[in-house]
Amino acid sequence: MAGLEAVLARVDADLDHALERLFAVLRIKSISTDPAYKADVQANADWHVADLESIGFTAKAHATPGHPVVLGHHREGSGPSALFYGHYDVQPVDPLELWTQDPFEPVIEAGEGGAKVIRGRGSADDKGQLMTFVEACRAWKAVTGSLPIPLSILLEGEEETGGVNLPPFLKAHADELKADIGLICDTNMWDAKTPAIQTMLRGMVTEEITIHAADRDLHSGFYGSAAANPNRILARILADLYDDAGRVTLAGFYDGVPELPESLKKSWAGLDFDARAFLGEIGLSVPAGERDRSVLEMVWSRPTAEINGMGGGYQGEGFKTVIPAKASAKVSFRLVFDQDPNKVRDAFRAFVRKRVPTDCRVEFIGYGAASAIRFPNEAPAFAKAQKALSDEWGREAKFIGGGGSIPVAADIKSILGMDVMLAGFGLNDDRIHSPNEKYSLASFHKGIRSWVRILDELSR
Amino acid sequence: MAGLEAVLARVDADLDHALERLFAVLRIKSISTDPAYKADVQANADWHVADLESIGFTAKAHATPGHPVVLGHHREGSGPSALFYGHYDVQPVDPLELWTQDPFEPVIEAGEGGAKVIRGRGSADDKGQLMTFVEACRAWKAVTGSLPIPLSILLEGEEETGGVNLPPFLKAHADELKADIGLICDTNMWDAKTPAIQTMLRGMVTEEITIHAADRDLHSGFYGSAAANPNRILARILADLYDDAGRVTLAGFYDGVPELPESLKKSWAGLDFDARAFLGEIGLSVPAGERDRSVLEMVWSRPTAEINGMGGGYQGEGFKTVIPAKASAKVSFRLVFDQDPNKVRDAFRAFVRKRVPTDCRVEFIGYGAASAIRFPNEAPAFAKAQKALSDEWGREAKFIGGGGSIPVAADIKSILGMDVMLAGFGLNDDRIHSPNEKYSLASFHKGIRSWVRILDELSR
Repeated sequence: MAGLEAVLARVDADLDHALERLFAVLRIKSISTDPAYKADVQANADWHVADLESIGFTAKAHATPGHPVVLGHHREGSGPSALFYGHYDVQPVDPLELWTQDPFEPVIEAGEGGAKVIRGRGSADDKGQLMTFVEACRAWKAVTGSLPIPLSILLEGEEETGGVNLPPFLKAHADELKADIGLICDTNMWDAKTPAIQTMLRGMVTEEITIHAADRDLHSGFYGSAAANPNRILARILADLYDDAGRVTLAGFYDGVPELPESLKKSWAGLDFDARAFLGEIGLSVPAGERDRSVLEMVWSRPTAEINGMGGGYQGEGFKTVIPAKASAKVSFRLVFDQDPNKVRDAFRAFVRKRVPTDCRVEFIGYGAASAIRFPNEAPAFAKAQKALSDEWGREAKFIGGGGSIPVAADIKSILGMDVMLAGFGLNDDRIHSPNEKYSLASFHKGIRSWVRILDELSR
Repeated sequence: MAGLEAVLARVDADLDHALERLFAVLRIKSISTDPAYKADVQANADWHVADLESIGFTAKAHATPGHPVVLGHHREGSGPSALFYGHYDVQPVDPLELWTQDPFEPVIEAGEGGAKVIRGRGSADDKGQLMTFVEACRAWKAVTGSLPIPLSILLEGEEETGGVNLPPFLKAHADELKADIGLICDTNMWDAKTPAIQTMLRGMVTEEITIHAADRDLHSGFYGSAAANPNRILARILADLYDDAGRVTLAGFYDGVPELPESLKKSWAGLDFDARAFLGEIGLSVPAGERDRSVLEMVWSRPTAEINGMGGGYQGEGFKTVIPAKASAKVSFRLVFDQDPNKVRDAFRAFVRKRVPTDCRVEFIGYGAASAIRFPNEAPAFAKAQKALSDEWGREAKFIGGGGSIPVAADIKSILGMDVMLAGFGLNDDRIHSPNEKYSLASFHKGIRSWVRILDELSR
């Protein structure tokens, strides 16, 4: 126990330096979806390689057909081994004018409740979170000269774009990656005071569709009504995706979606979740999903369809009476339980094709696909982590569901055969993917301390 | 007749200079909808003032709350007077990458059928057309030292943006503007060999709507389904605008829309209109409008609703699982016969409001509104113009309908109490409002000659 206390003290003493390191990585514009930032993503990977090597890892940025995968090993010692996963790429920052600062010039400032926050793109998703783990390793190494258990660290650069190159990488390096447990820091606490381990993850299918009509933009005065308008075709397709009760209308969409097990239903009912406050915090009040479901079910255990982007025709200032040649949309489906991502994709494509007039055509771009997943919270590693988190935060860590999709968790399970423990320190108001993303300073500091404790528990 | 022949000969001899003048004005980037081009629009107005003065007009660019109105007078002589209207502003040029040249560096080249065309933004709409009239005046003046009839020329700089400042200008200058007949050159021929006078014009109402939901962009994994998605709300609104038979569903939309008079029905049935060729030319084959109407009815005499633009969420490369804070669309309605533009606007707004959830809100921007209009083709000026056009082209000029809206024609009728004769030399494949807009060189040359003849006929 003396070792643990000394390492925790080291974390406290070294916090300013840990923040300097975090800020250095937050300044790198690692926007994976935009080819203009390719060199920045590479620079970010190189930064992590050097950083891991400074802690005593052997590390390398592995080239892929997309952005690099950083992989580091520190396998001295005995005990159960772990593979940590994080991602160093970030979402685009538009609309830039809504940021109160340069998204890539992080600052520490008072948050809405007065507590300090780290503001900047990637502060919560996922650079701030992944660095809590790296800093925990650094503190152990500094104090004891080693790590409590054999560790590998895997950092992805394409999580925000579907991560199509990671599964082949996992397959190709399976032997090198295999460990007793996977660890991921990319999820939220239950609330600002209550830590949580997420044991259910929704899956996801993402598709981009483009409707092509006339071979050029047309004047709506000459061709209006007579010529197919791809905006109208697209609006019909997207509207038809939902029925009046808020259910998704794709054929077979709810196959493999059971009612919640009674035990989980009871456990969730015991959570102090306030749907009104959850929506009120973002300026809304009416749950928009399936009419007969609670908000918690909507965001944790029910499948969804969302139109993440759509566009066609003239969108500038003023008016242009054009009928565009094409219109497109990006649609994502969150999947639960045993929904088959490939079947959902096929059903969606058939649904779209059925609604495209015979003289028009549709083009599909398929992005990532991942099944939903559940991990066994009764397994020893989960109980140990729960104890460590509860010790650090002074409240019992909760096992929760969650709406986000972390495809790599499913991939680690299916390709490497490992369970994954998802413990993260994000908060619901972190504005990830939005302007003014932030990460609570307490999340960063106590997050590092939490991993110090989890590594200690896992070694016992 | 000697005078007329001499003037026509002068037109032929001066064609190269007329083209130089046209090119000079085509090079000016007078995109009225984009504030970035405000100075260019002003420069274009100034160009016309100087040009009209060089022909002997007294001319001035009148300031308005928007872009200037150019007004020139040449009122010597006797006979029935005329007010000519044209517009010197142009549509935006995006998508720029589809142009085969700089849209503002006009060229003369072989068109698809081999005949020469003038290519560039505004070549047909409306700089090329309005210059046919100006050049006709220049030729008369050069040969005879005067014009056949007293003339005023009115050139608008906001036609492409709804022209909200023109009606107040017409009211304020009514006495100065009044004449026996209005002349407009902003319409098409029946085909490349057959001139036409358009005696029916659809009206138009244009609206922009923005749906606001959450107070920020959201992560669809955390908020999907629970939080209102403005893309989904907008898609539903836009899809609901049409029923399965292709009719517009707004309450009272078809009030004031009678069946075509038998005489007009017969006259149109006699036109050699090929719906298959009309759609085939733009790469389509299935009429998209009301199921029980002919294509000619759709584009000439039936009201329409078109989604000219829509957008919300992430539209860049790749994927971003965002639920946007807002989404918007630009919708235009073409009106016929006695439809009331204000009632249509009100019905649309009520229709939209009804479909916006109580925790979201909608914002409207109303652009122009104009009633449909018909002019008396049996009146003397129309018969004279028909004769002049038939003489020039060697085929009888047709009286036709038309799908485009020229709100100023309705304004001239209602505010100044004048009939308007619409004679233009555009062709259906001119790609106005689209990349690679062109104007046939024959349209320009014989268009000038046509106006020379019409002015002569009107003086008789």
